[in-house]
Amino acid sequence: MHPYSSLTMAQLQQESEILKARFEEYKGRGLKLNMARGVPSPAQLDLSQDMMSCLGGADDCICDGVEARNYGLPEGLPAAKQLFAEILGVNAEQVIVGNNSSLNMMHDMIMRGFCFGFGGCKPWFQQGRVKFICPVPGYDRHFAICENLGIEMIPIRMTPDGPDMDAVRELVKDESVKGMWNIPKYSNPTGYTYSDETVKALASLKPAAKDFRIFWDNAYCVHDLTDEGDRLADIMSLAEAAGNENMVFMFASTSKMSFPGAGIACAVVGKGDLPYVRKLIGIQSICPDKLNQLRHVRYFKDGNGVKEHMKKHAEIIRPKFEAVQNAFTAELEGCGIASWTRPNGGYFISLDVLNGTASRVIGLAAEAGLLLTPAGSTWPYHNDPDDSNIRIAPTYPSVDDIKLAAEIIAVCVKLAAVEKIISAKEC
Amino acid sequence: MHPYSSLTMAQLQQESEILKARFEEYKGRGLKLNMARGVPSPAQLDLSQDMMSCLGGADDCICDGVEARNYGLPEGLPAAKQLFAEILGVNAEQVIVGNNSSLNMMHDMIMRGFCFGFGGCKPWFQQGRVKFICPVPGYDRHFAICENLGIEMIPIRMTPDGPDMDAVRELVKDESVKGMWNIPKYSNPTGYTYSDETVKALASLKPAAKDFRIFWDNAYCVHDLTDEGDRLADIMSLAEAAGNENMVFMFASTSKMSFPGAGIACAVVGKGDLPYVRKLIGIQSICPDKLNQLRHVRYFKDGNGVKEHMKKHAEIIRPKFEAVQNAFTAELEGCGIASWTRPNGGYFISLDVLNGTASRVIGLAAEAGLLLTPAGSTWPYHNDPDDSNIRIAPTYPSVDDIKLAAEIIAVCVKLAAVEKIISAKEC
Repeated sequence: MHPYSSLTMAQLQQESEILKARFEEYKGRGLKLNMARGVPSPAQLDLSQDMMSCLGGADDCICDGVEARNYGLPEGLPAAKQLFAEILGVNAEQVIVGNNSSLNMMHDMIMRGFCFGFGGCKPWFQQGRVKFICPVPGYDRHFAICENLGIEMIPIRMTPDGPDMDAVRELVKDESVKGMWNIPKYSNPTGYTYSDETVKALASLKPAAKDFRIFWDNAYCVHDLTDEGDRLADIMSLAEAAGNENMVFMFASTSKMSFPGAGIACAVVGKGDLPYVRKLIGIQSICPDKLNQLRHVRYFKDGNGVKEHMKKHAEIIRPKFEAVQNAFTAELEGCGIASWTRPNGGYFISLDVLNGTASRVIGLAAEAGLLLTPAGSTWPYHNDPDDSNIRIAPTYPSVDDIKLAAEIIAVCVKLAAVEKIISAKEC
Repeated sequence: MHPYSSLTMAQLQQESEILKARFEEYKGRGLKLNMARGVPSPAQLDLSQDMMSCLGGADDCICDGVEARNYGLPEGLPAAKQLFAEILGVNAEQVIVGNNSSLNMMHDMIMRGFCFGFGGCKPWFQQGRVKFICPVPGYDRHFAICENLGIEMIPIRMTPDGPDMDAVRELVKDESVKGMWNIPKYSNPTGYTYSDETVKALASLKPAAKDFRIFWDNAYCVHDLTDEGDRLADIMSLAEAAGNENMVFMFASTSKMSFPGAGIACAVVGKGDLPYVRKLIGIQSICPDKLNQLRHVRYFKDGNGVKEHMKKHAEIIRPKFEAVQNAFTAELEGCGIASWTRPNGGYFISLDVLNGTASRVIGLAAEAGLLLTPAGSTWPYHNDPDDSNIRIAPTYPSVDDIKLAAEIIAVCVKLAAVEKIISAKEC
């Protein structure tokens, strides 16, 4: 395919006619597909079904001598702490296992910074305007938490090695910068994994604010598409070695290992912050749902059990990612109007289209019955200044549907680009 | 028994010797009993065991066409909303079903007032010092949430009909009074149930603050010890009728119906506040654990199912409450140094001992191997100005243990009183 930029007006108009015809044909199919969020498919849910019946008898509910059916253990079952420690490669002592949602645990941690403060500093609400560093494109639900609290978000560029560390080092000189969002492995939506250099640089930051905290949302820690997968350096140890033992809050959940919304989630907290966070958690609730924690312990057994289980997920998901890659390559390569990521894991592909056309592409796709993540979602305040980023979530639909959907997206990308180029030439 | 106040010094000293001997005898038994918290007994946990295996197959996880294993429904399963609506006698539309902890839902609701505000008013953190009305004796975990946020707590007297409404009406004239804690049925620790008059008076309050909210912790809504049980008026309807449709946040959980810490909890929100609270809940988390909600729906079926189930709990608990009543009556009646409540439900008995002796009684009991709720716990800031209130939690130990424990408590109450009276006479 020739780059669109090299086409004459006549060629563009011809291309436009072809694309419109294809688009109308797709529209005519009456498709109804929701690809707005990263949602596991029914086949993935079935993988963990046996977990539902592993606590049938009263004896099954005793774990290491602890009655999991009754109150107690605000930090969660020791065995569940151990399970997450193995999954994440951290110290079980520092793991707090909660209920079903790591997002909720991140939300609550930010609320703690806002209402009560970290590191002996004043609560953020008493410190005037505070700011968070937000690698972009990023995760809309992270940004919504900050926006809701009036925390100013500063977007910085995401690269295949992780966030632009020069920008980060510069920003943390500002004492009002209190936090930074990260999805360090198979980042949402790029699928990029932070390089060892990036993780080391983050771990050894010297922020002006003593209450600066890195929010390390390790949502896709074991979500490899291939046997190798990406390797992520251990930020907790690196931070501790660099004298930043309290700088990182790590989060994870089994939402995309067992059941979305009915898994278990955890926070990993620096040794110095632990007593303080424990105290606040003890005020918030009596204890998490230890029976659901125990279900996960019984079913997964240990870190290796999780790894084996995740291979089954990969078998289901990988063909869907491949279908997107194949369709995009066939339709878009060489056009010079789109680039996209090729992740080794996670739940998303990030698609960058011709500046100023992302909203149009998403609108066109909707016309054809294909619901994509709303335009701007990957930027703070839903404001993608280039209107160019689109998040592709290929996990839920069937392979056939994904193949079709990716073709439709590609056609929409080209149609929107041709429209834009023609309109620019006409001006 | 003659009142202690009528005893001569010699009689007091004789009584003291008898009590000391009894106390030493109890101490010698090497008892180790924890009665500090309201915890269901293992036999109660077994009542709901079958709930653990009702979601064995994938088909079992579909409820009214909704796949409960996947993301979605931030307010909870419609069937779970309906279940709580029947239990609480409220409109299902206004019920938000969360995870396992109603305390957590109350905590989060107060955090919303603090960080974001209610009723279009400024967040509480921007309004200077704000206050909560706290009927005493009350629930320490309620008070801890306020204390942690720096919300000033104003204790008011609890009566057998509910809180002293004259005091409440006076206090809500202060615009800085933003909330009030209530456990309206079988209150913790008195076991009192608010009378219809009290509920009506609360529902028709005219608080100065537009963002004043009644926190209605209906923790013991169906926790009757007898078939009749107490009747609680419907505050949501009464408040709506009085033009206060947004004044009440109601809470409940199945912690003491199914599993403590592994049940499901809900908040009931006024119609006007609903969209706002929904929005904030949507930012906090993607959805609650709908599988655990579905387990409860499948197992309890409906409000009647819950009522029948609660009769089984009552069968187990009632003899324990009776054991305490019998021991207290036998040991303490007529002494003029103690009074206690005789609840028809709930989890506690409130014991008032001679002023200035509650800490001593609790200390003596600890010496005899009996851990009671720490002194002062039923008051804000752990400050019981009379040092007189003790919370008795009779549900966890066996009936025999409770019988013994109640005797020991009674002996400690008398011993501490005699010590105190002798020491006062000697001064």
